[in-house]
Amino acid sequence: MLRRGEQPAKRLETFPNHHPGRDYVITLRTEEFTCVCPVTGQPDFARLIIQYIPDRKIVESKSLKLYLWSFRNQGIFHEHAANTVLDKLVKILAPRWCKVTADFAARGGISITVEAEHGKRNG
Amino acid sequence: MLRRGEQPAKRLETFPNHHPGRDYVITLRTEEFTCVCPVTGQPDFARLIIQYIPDRKIVESKSLKLYLWSFRNQGIFHEHAANTVLDKLVKILAPRWCKVTADFAARGGISITVEAEHGKRNG
Amino acid sequence: MLRRGEQPAKRLETFPNHHPGRDYVITLRTEEFTCVCPVTGQPDFARLIIQYIPDRKIVESKSLKLYLWSFRNQGIFHEHAANTVLDKLVKILAPRWCKVTADFAARGGISITVEAEHGKRNG
Amino acid sequence: MLRRGEQPAKRLETFPNHHPGRDYVITLRTEEFTCVCPVTGQPDFARLIIQYIPDRKIVESKSLKLYLWSFRNQGIFHEHAANTVLDKLVKILAPRWCKVTADFAARGGISITVEAEHGKRNG
Amino acid sequence: MLRRGEQPAKRLETFPNHHPGRDYVITLRTEEFTCVCPVTGQPDFARLIIQYIPDRKIVESKSLKLYLWSFRNQGIFHEHAANTVLDKLVKILAPRWCKVTADFAARGGISITVEAEHGKRNG
Amino acid sequence: MLRRGEQPAKRLETFPNHHPGRDYVITLRTEEFTCVCPVTGQPDFARLIIQYIPDRKIVESKSLKLYLWSFRNQGIFHEHAANTVLDKLVKILAPRWCKVTADFAARGGISITVEAEHGKRNG
Amino acid sequence: MLRRGEQPAKRLETFPNHHPGRDYVITLRTEEFTCVCPVTGQPDFARLIIQYIPDRKIVESKSLKLYLWSFRNQGIFHEHAANTVLDKLVKILAPRWCKVTADFAARGGISITVEAEHGKRNG
Amino acid sequence: MLRRGEQPAKRLETFPNHHPGRDYVITLRTEEFTCVCPVTGQPDFARLIIQYIPDRKIVESKSLKLYLWSFRNQGIFHEHAANTVLDKLVKILAPRWCKVTADFAARGGISITVEAEHGKRNG
Amino acid sequence: MLRRGEQPAKRLETFPNHHPGRDYVITLRTEEFTCVCPVTGQPDFARLIIQYIPDRKIVESKSLKLYLWSFRNQGIFHEHAANTVLDKLVKILAPRWCKVTADFAARGGISITVEAEHGKRNG
Amino acid sequence: MLRRGEQPAKRLETFPNHHPGRDYVITLRTEEFTCVCPVTGQPDFARLIIQYIPDRKIVESKSLKLYLWSFRNQGIFHEHAANTVLDKLVKILAPRWCKVTADFAARGGISITVEAEHGKRNG
Repeated sequence: MLRRGEQPAKRLETFPNHHPGRDYVITLRTEEFTCVCPVTGQPDFARLIIQYIPDRKIVESKSLKLYLWSFRNQGIFHEHAANTVLDKLVKILAPRWCKVTADFAARGGISITVEAEHGKRNG
Repeated sequence: MLRRGEQPAKRLETFPNHHPGRDYVITLRTEEFTCVCPVTGQPDFARLIIQYIPDRKIVESKSLKLYLWSFRNQGIFHEHAANTVLDKLVKILAPRWCKVTADFAARGGISITVEAEHGKRNG
Repeated sequence: MLRRGEQPAKRLETFPNHHPGRDYVITLRTEEFTCVCPVTGQPDFARLIIQYIPDRKIVESKSLKLYLWSFRNQGIFHEHAANTVLDKLVKILAPRWCKVTADFAARGGISITVEAEHGKRNG
Repeated sequence: MLRRGEQPAKRLETFPNHHPGRDYVITLRTEEFTCVCPVTGQPDFARLIIQYIPDRKIVESKSLKLYLWSFRNQGIFHEHAANTVLDKLVKILAPRWCKVTADFAARGGISITVEAEHGKRNG
Repeated sequence: MLRRGEQPAKRLETFPNHHPGRDYVITLRTEEFTCVCPVTGQPDFARLIIQYIPDRKIVESKSLKLYLWSFRNQGIFHEHAANTVLDKLVKILAPRWCKVTADFAARGGISITVEAEHGKRNG
Repeated sequence: MLRRGEQPAKRLETFPNHHPGRDYVITLRTEEFTCVCPVTGQPDFARLIIQYIPDRKIVESKSLKLYLWSFRNQGIFHEHAANTVLDKLVKILAPRWCKVTADFAARGGISITVEAEHGKRNG
Repeated sequence: MLRRGEQPAKRLETFPNHHPGRDYVITLRTEEFTCVCPVTGQPDFARLIIQYIPDRKIVESKSLKLYLWSFRNQGIFHEHAANTVLDKLVKILAPRWCKVTADFAARGGISITVEAEHGKRNG
Repeated sequence: MLRRGEQPAKRLETFPNHHPGRDYVITLRTEEFTCVCPVTGQPDFARLIIQYIPDRKIVESKSLKLYLWSFRNQGIFHEHAANTVLDKLVKILAPRWCKVTADFAARGGISITVEAEHGKRNG
Repeated sequence: MLRRGEQPAKRLETFPNHHPGRDYVITLRTEEFTCVCPVTGQPDFARLIIQYIPDRKIVESKSLKLYLWSFRNQGIFHEHAANTVLDKLVKILAPRWCKVTADFAARGGISITVEAEHGKRNG
Repeated sequence: MLRRGEQPAKRLETFPNHHPGRDYVITLRTEEFTCVCPVTGQPDFARLIIQYIPDRKIVESKSLKLYLWSFRNQGIFHEHAANTVLDKLVKILAPRWCKVTADFAARGGISITVEAEHGKRNG
């Protein structure tokens, strides 16, 4: 949760993984991702699920919240949002595996889910 | 849905009720209401339910979408958000009855729902 | 189900109520109501629920299906669709009580439900 | 459950109510009611719910099963099935209150529920 | 959502995939697919799910809505509807993998789901 | 939970109500009630719900568990089980209001729920 | 749906598969399968799911409805019902793969599901 | 959420109600209430629901979190927990109506829910 | 269902498999398994699921009911109950594959599920 | 359940596996795991699922309850909690396979699930 003065930010912080000898899966899930349609400027809403097997770093959850908040007034297509978050996590965490799922609410009666993956979960 | 150039707005538009001789209930529901905490500045998310018995006017749904969008970057307490939306609808529609329910997502493990009503549904 | 040659129709058929001495409730429900937005021309979809206490007549269900089908390419506002179906049933059946609920799928993130009633269920 | 040789039957058996000094509600529920459409001859399927406040008699559940089985190959309209079962129970049990709900599976996309009641639950 | 003057159309539009170096899955889902039975002329209703791994093109969602709308008054068998949509997407997008699932509402107590796939998801 | 040597028992223990100045509702619920059919000797299973407004006494929950356990090998009709538990609680607790609901699993495709009440909840 | 004069029948009709170049899966599902216990004569009820990959033929759904109806008064064990329907479909359709699942309602507190398969789905 | 150095506390803070002219209902809900059994010392877990119609004061939600946290290592009977929270809120807020529901997880197969109310919701 | 005089029994009866040329799966499921804790003597409750591919024999369901009833007053650990039922079925049926799942209700807030398997489902 | 004087403890007790010749899976599940955030000191809540294939030892469930209780006032990160429980079980049981899943309630709108595994389930 935020203290007064905290701001949305594109920077993710990490802390060391204490169990690097074991492949284990961390899943972060929020119902509260929102961004803006780059064509119409209207708000979009998604459930976002981030899953990864850490190598040496674990993402710090408060910085993740500020990072996801940074999309609030940003124009981005559904298909790119999931890939952008994945690219960021791969760059910061260098995880053994990572998958981002963005499940957007329906527009015009059609909903869009995008699932992007880096590496293989079993391998 | 928005056309390019549409903007969030505090103004609600109406059209005439073609069945004023009958008390009937209109329910508008969205999972996509978001505003900002006036203390911490962080985003809040709610399911919003608007119910009313129209008298002479019905709220136009696109203007309602723009009106709800106008809260996106506005700081407002949970308890006041429902009352503010209700006050607005009562002023614009002069409905025979109106109820607004705002069901906010949990913060610190506690969720808050606010239900505010104008007039009586039966009578 | 339709035989070849059946067509959507605005005419409802009835058969006599064999239990007029008792107030009982008949509920007809479909997930397959569709009409067209009178402004944009685009399709709308609704769950429709019809409830009534018959007096001397019961609506024949195949004719009801053809009647609901007749809205498929008709332009009509959400708020009027429920009232129009209610008016029709009241005229044809002269029921002791009747209620029509039309629960339309979301457009622009907002769904609309309209509940219109004729008479009182207990009285 | 049936022993070999048991048959569907229109006769209901009862046993005495041991608690006639108290109004209490018995609910019998089955997902396995089936009868035949009197027009087309095709099978219909319903969930059937029987509720009553006994006076001096309680319906014996095995005889109820045989009674409901007796509709299996009988042609009857949805609206009449519920009323017929209610009439039978009222005649046999003389209950303080009784309600029969028959919730038929959809035909042509429309499902029909019939709720018939004898007496008042609170009175 | 549609602007005045938009029409159902058989033409799908695309935009370039910005992440062609990664296999990722896009899922489009609607509860609002309707077409007409080619034998009886009556309306059919389905949930339609489109999934694909894009190569160089992504389908533009508004054109998809207009394309699905184009089936509204078209006679087509359940088994062919899913294959026809799949064929169209394969032709327009040349995706690495594509699957179309059409889940039709029950007729005569029997529902039909058709799942057609082009290529292999893992390969 | 039981200590070694604990036994099913027909005796209920109580402790004093510390808030007798306020009407409040206590609900006890178990999915684990089982008794035996007095006719066939076979096991029956029910969800049992006990609700009451205490006057001067509250039932001690471990003794309630032992009491409900005492029905495990006892032959009793569905209709009488709920009334028997209610009679016992009324005698021991002298509550301002009490209701017992026994919801028995289906036999021969028919399930039975019995709801017995002592006094009025609001009054 | 049935026209007057239609009868249950053991004969299944087919129409040609227009997409024989593609392996795709058709699923037919009904909650309305009923037959009779060959030992006690009592009715049994099941959810029936038929899945297949067509080769040259597709089963015509109305004839399937009449075929399933033909079990209504036939004595057959749960374990044999699924296998009998599967054998019939394999004989008539010569499908690339076929699976029949029959999920029977509980008797004596035990439900039985039978899953029988012909060929391999992926192969 | 807590800042470093925050502690569980028995003190509730309030802020003024800006809509005292209207009776409206605020519902606070948490799945994370835990206390300790006063007899065995073992942990108990409950869903806690607080509902009230404010008069001049609204409870500040962070202080409510600290207050509920203060029960974490406190021994208290299920029946008293709900009443104690209600007494506290009535004392601090002087609300027009207030209800506390504590829904404790099962022990020995029996769950306990306690609903305590101050004043009447309608009047 | 039981006739008068039937008793719980450790003996399972079988009948011949009429489709030995096909590997198919039979699933038997009950929510009504109960036994006794060997340490405390208190009742335990489980959902029991039996799945097998028959070779030459199918278990007769009434004898299975009597067999499961035989655990009602028997002391047995959760971990051993599933294995004991599996051993019995393997011995009596010599199935191609068999799996028993026992899903016991929570004690002290912890539930236990045991899944024991004989042979491989595919092979 | 606890007897007076029982305390949270880091020591797990075991009893011998009576079916070491068979690989079978034991699943222990609780909704009642709570620990403390090491940064803020505030309580965290999780659903904890422990699954293992025993070799020679089975964990005694009462000692497991006392062990999980021992985290109640211990500061530990979400990511480490699952690994710590897994390490402990592996050390005490030397299981053929073990997996621990900790599914923590949302903080700041983001929930975290950690799944840690020792060995392979099939192998």
